[in-house]
Amino acid sequence: MSETYAPDLTQRFGAPPAFDGHTLAGAVDDDAALHRILGRRTHRDYAPKPVPEALLGVLVSAALSASSKSDFQQASIIRVVDPAKRAALAALIPAMPWIGTSPVFYVFCGDARRLERLCELRGHPQGNGRLEGFFNAAVDAALVMQTFILAAESMGLGVCPISVIRNHPDAVGEILGLPDKVFPVAGLCIGWPARAGFVSMRLPPAVTVHVDRYDDADMPGLVDAYDRSRDARHSIPPDKQRSPQKFGAAAFYGWSEDKARQAAEPEGGAFPVWLRKRGFTFD
Amino acid sequence: MSETYAPDLTQRFGAPPAFDGHTLAGAVDDDAALHRILGRRTHRDYAPKPVPEALLGVLVSAALSASSKSDFQQASIIRVVDPAKRAALAALIPAMPWIGTSPVFYVFCGDARRLERLCELRGHPQGNGRLEGFFNAAVDAALVMQTFILAAESMGLGVCPISVIRNHPDAVGEILGLPDKVFPVAGLCIGWPARAGFVSMRLPPAVTVHVDRYDDADMPGLVDAYDRSRDARHSIPPDKQRSPQKFGAAAFYGWSEDKARQAAEPEGGAFPVWLRKRGFTFD
Repeated sequence: MSETYAPDLTQRFGAPPAFDGHTLAGAVDDDAALHRILGRRTHRDYAPKPVPEALLGVLVSAALSASSKSDFQQASIIRVVDPAKRAALAALIPAMPWIGTSPVFYVFCGDARRLERLCELRGHPQGNGRLEGFFNAAVDAALVMQTFILAAESMGLGVCPISVIRNHPDAVGEILGLPDKVFPVAGLCIGWPARAGFVSMRLPPAVTVHVDRYDDADMPGLVDAYDRSRDARHSIPPDKQRSPQKFGAAAFYGWSEDKARQAAEPEGGAFPVWLRKRGFTFD
Repeated sequence: MSETYAPDLTQRFGAPPAFDGHTLAGAVDDDAALHRILGRRTHRDYAPKPVPEALLGVLVSAALSASSKSDFQQASIIRVVDPAKRAALAALIPAMPWIGTSPVFYVFCGDARRLERLCELRGHPQGNGRLEGFFNAAVDAALVMQTFILAAESMGLGVCPISVIRNHPDAVGEILGLPDKVFPVAGLCIGWPARAGFVSMRLPPAVTVHVDRYDDADMPGLVDAYDRSRDARHSIPPDKQRSPQKFGAAAFYGWSEDKARQAAEPEGGAFPVWLRKRGFTFD
């Protein structure tokens, strides 16, 4: 990176990171896409300016250029245009009004159905509801969505992924007419950013990147330092502490306390139940 | 797109696609990143030219800038440097020698362990081995990997994802020292492309993109046309037909016949067994 990417890395990690098996010392070509990825941020507020239809067509086409496990192509994309359907999806999650107000909304789905139908059509019947089919379809959808995101951001658009739609699988399945073995991975709000947004600080690569062997022995101390570094930039206000009646009021409330509290009140319990009704066995 | 992206779209889909709820008629700004994504291709042959270490450091940092469900950051990346470990991984899959020969090799992992440890450390113990934890970790890893891929391609590198390492979970887990609740999503070969490669033709968006409701009524005919279109560009030679002793020799052997045969001889059965041994319950 030498100096070229130092400001981006400082924004993303609090400081240019040091991590096993990697160095940041040395020249790296200046590249606009790399700067943009390092500086990417979520946007939930959008300017009242339409997104050109032809641009969406090209972005969806670019998204489908993502890699796909075994070339099985198990992602499907649903664009939600009907105002009644947009409103019905938004009504499921009142805490995220941007689901209803973003100029454009897509849902990226894992699609284990298409391959199963192809097997039938070609006379080699084979179910695709085992863990392998579910996993490959989920990953394909994620690869397609992230490709859409980075392509959209390259054109100046801002996005906000909406994973929480999976907490309402019956309603989402009904609204989008999802058949068996097609499931939402995430929705995506899209529009021209109304404000600059902010870079979400990431765990240091010393926590998330390993060499030759997974080793998280140093994780607790590194996360403590990360919590402090995040807090110094954007501290979570006391009234935003999760469930204080259950967990108490924390004197220092960092990222890890917030995430531990969130995980300790698990969500997503409806999704596996729904997936099993829709033909997945996970064996 | 008007004319700007027409050649890219023709390469990717056989012809500029038409699909419900989208138009490609209209001006779209010329953007190098968008052209590159539309033209992206897999590379398995690499020039004997090292990949600068500082570039890898920046690319990994960029990859970690991907979106993450609830900011839980459940991806971990393992770089495999030790020649003995590279050789051991390559020996598992002799059909893909590039696993051992690519200049650089990473493994992108879903990591449901870190959040569980954070819950313990913060005094809010909660298991993370249910379907929700598995799913979110898998998707986070896929988002990080695809961000790495697109960042690397922006710098001129070529990559080849290796999902098949999941077919050997015991060995891969042992080689990489994976603890419970950390699992491989895919490996990734990286290097400077030795040749131009070719664009993998994708299913038409008329199959994979829907508006307001999932609808695959026209899929069979569209896939027939896709098979013919792919075959016209790169036909699969007769000696590459899968398992002719079981399925016979097909007069016309297109993508869908090939994928149906592949799916009809399922792989990946060891992965769910291993995941369950490693603490996942999928409930």
